Amino acid sequence: MELDTLFRVVDVTGVVASGLLGGALARSKRFDIVGFVTLAIITGLGGGMIRDVLLSSGFPVALTDPAYLAGALTAAVVAYVVRLDGTWPRRSLVVADVLALGCWSATGTIKAATLGLAVLPSIMLGVITAVGGGMLRDVLVGKTPTVFGGNTLYASLAALGSVEALVCMKVFGRPDLGMLVAILTTTILGMLARRLGWMLP
Amino acid sequence: MELDTLFRVVDVTGVVASGLLGGALARSKRFDIVGFVTLAIITGLGGGMIRDVLLSSGFPVALTDPAYLAGALTAAVVAYVVRLDGTWPRRSLVVADVLALGCWSATGTIKAATLGLAVLPSIMLGVITAVGGGMLRDVLVGKTPTVFGGNTLYASLAALGSVEALVCMKVFGRPDLGMLVAILTTTILGMLARRLGWMLP
Amino acid sequence: MELDTLFRVVDVTGVVASGLLGGALARSKRFDIVGFVTLAIITGLGGGMIRDVLLSSGFPVALTDPAYLAGALTAAVVAYVVRLDGTWPRRSLVVADVLALGCWSATGTIKAATLGLAVLPSIMLGVITAVGGGMLRDVLVGKTPTVFGGNTLYASLAALGSVEALVCMKVFGRPDLGMLVAILTTTILGMLARRLGWMLP
Repeated sequence: MELDTLFRVVDVTGVVASGLLGGALARSKRFDIVGFVTLAIITGLGGGMIRDVLLSSGFPVALTDPAYLAGALTAAVVAYVVRLDGTWPRRSLVVADVLALGCWSATGTIKAATLGLAVLPSIMLGVITAVGGGMLRDVLVGKTPTVFGGNTLYASLAALGSVEALVCMKVFGRPDLGMLVAILTTTILGMLARRLGWMLP
Repeated sequence: MELDTLFRVVDVTGVVASGLLGGALARSKRFDIVGFVTLAIITGLGGGMIRDVLLSSGFPVALTDPAYLAGALTAAVVAYVVRLDGTWPRRSLVVADVLALGCWSATGTIKAATLGLAVLPSIMLGVITAVGGGMLRDVLVGKTPTVFGGNTLYASLAALGSVEALVCMKVFGRPDLGMLVAILTTTILGMLARRLGWMLP
Repeated sequence: MELDTLFRVVDVTGVVASGLLGGALARSKRFDIVGFVTLAIITGLGGGMIRDVLLSSGFPVALTDPAYLAGALTAAVVAYVVRLDGTWPRRSLVVADVLALGCWSATGTIKAATLGLAVLPSIMLGVITAVGGGMLRDVLVGKTPTVFGGNTLYASLAALGSVEALVCMKVFGRPDLGMLVAILTTTILGMLARRLGWMLP
């Protein structure tokens, strides 16, 4: 499988996972179907769209690659039809959430670095890609974004994933390895952090 | 009248109407004149600016065509000077609101499709153009955006208007007809929905 | 010192000042270190990034000039380590705040006018540059943005600074003078407004 295809598959998986999380929030707020669709799109595609707008390099990929919007809409419909509140659905969503975190921090950082940005801005864009959609979603429903603290590790994991992806890309010339490492790290550490209640000072 | 001129006139009418709505909100929140201007600009121009930023095709039209900013500022001043809370002003604002909804869903969709986007993203951009300014305004004053549910049809009408505009443009090659149909549909259905309390599930 | 260098130095000073304000807010909200960094970046760089995205002229300067991000991160760390709540730290922050207001309204307006925008949009972009970061910050932590009213002069000073900068640039061909005048005006009037409780109607 080519690198671009791999990135795309993992990326869209993250979109579906985040879209389900957005839909689950819409259910808890008793929104109508429009609310499900809006929150799924914003949670699933918001971070990448902020990244692409900041990188100002043509249309955001969420508008040109049909798989992204289709993934978010599918997630909205699934979340609308199926109640995702059993033990296993909840656990799967948690895993999907930290998996998307790693995937997006890696793709965001690699895209920014490929376009010529320096180290710090590339990492910042990785973090924005990973947590931007969730922040937008939280603000839209009137919550203080969870990235600000009082929650377990989230943006800090995205920063770690971004650094790893950048190292793998710049030092070893292996962005694909960077994505793998970033996903593994955020998923494992993210699960541990939730289980053990790790927090930043 | 040429098509571009028609689009522009209807578009700016929508800006003034939405600007008045933004100003009316500023009055209800007892904001000062800066609050009136800010809310009028954001309600009237926000959706189009989000659209143009996502389409990344040069300056947003709100910054280059002086009629847009002038329309929003005029609306802010009018809303600041005149109390728009009699029966007829209220009714006029309701009509103007659903009229702008149809107009902006059509112009947004047609602009996106003209720039080469596929069907789904074009519709999404039509809806963003139509409801984005109102969402921004609601978030800025700390309200949960009304598009999320619990209100009568709004974003769903924008989606309908976007589909109609796209069909008229792609199937019949008549974007002007698309705008007319979209405006008529959202205005008539929007008034009926408010009168009869229609809601989405 | 060349004009570009002067602009850059004053601009980054504003970034550090606003970043400290963002960090102080993070402390009052008991956020963790990620919250400090996020609020410092958003307060310090948000207005300029909105401006650059709206002007769609390549990468935002906050992503390409390393001094900007470094300034915001430094401010976050300082605000995290040092409690800025004595009398003199507070006073310094107030001065820094109105100084950044003047600086950013001038740089925003001059950048927009240099790129060919007309008078009104240029002034609007100056105001957005000056108050956009603070608005974003307020929305993210769930406050009604202070620019809407009930506070002393803020956005109105930014508008005044923008007009002055534009006059100095267009009439006298002296953007550097414009920045100086804008900074002096917003600083002096801003301090007086706070001391004397001036408000808009």
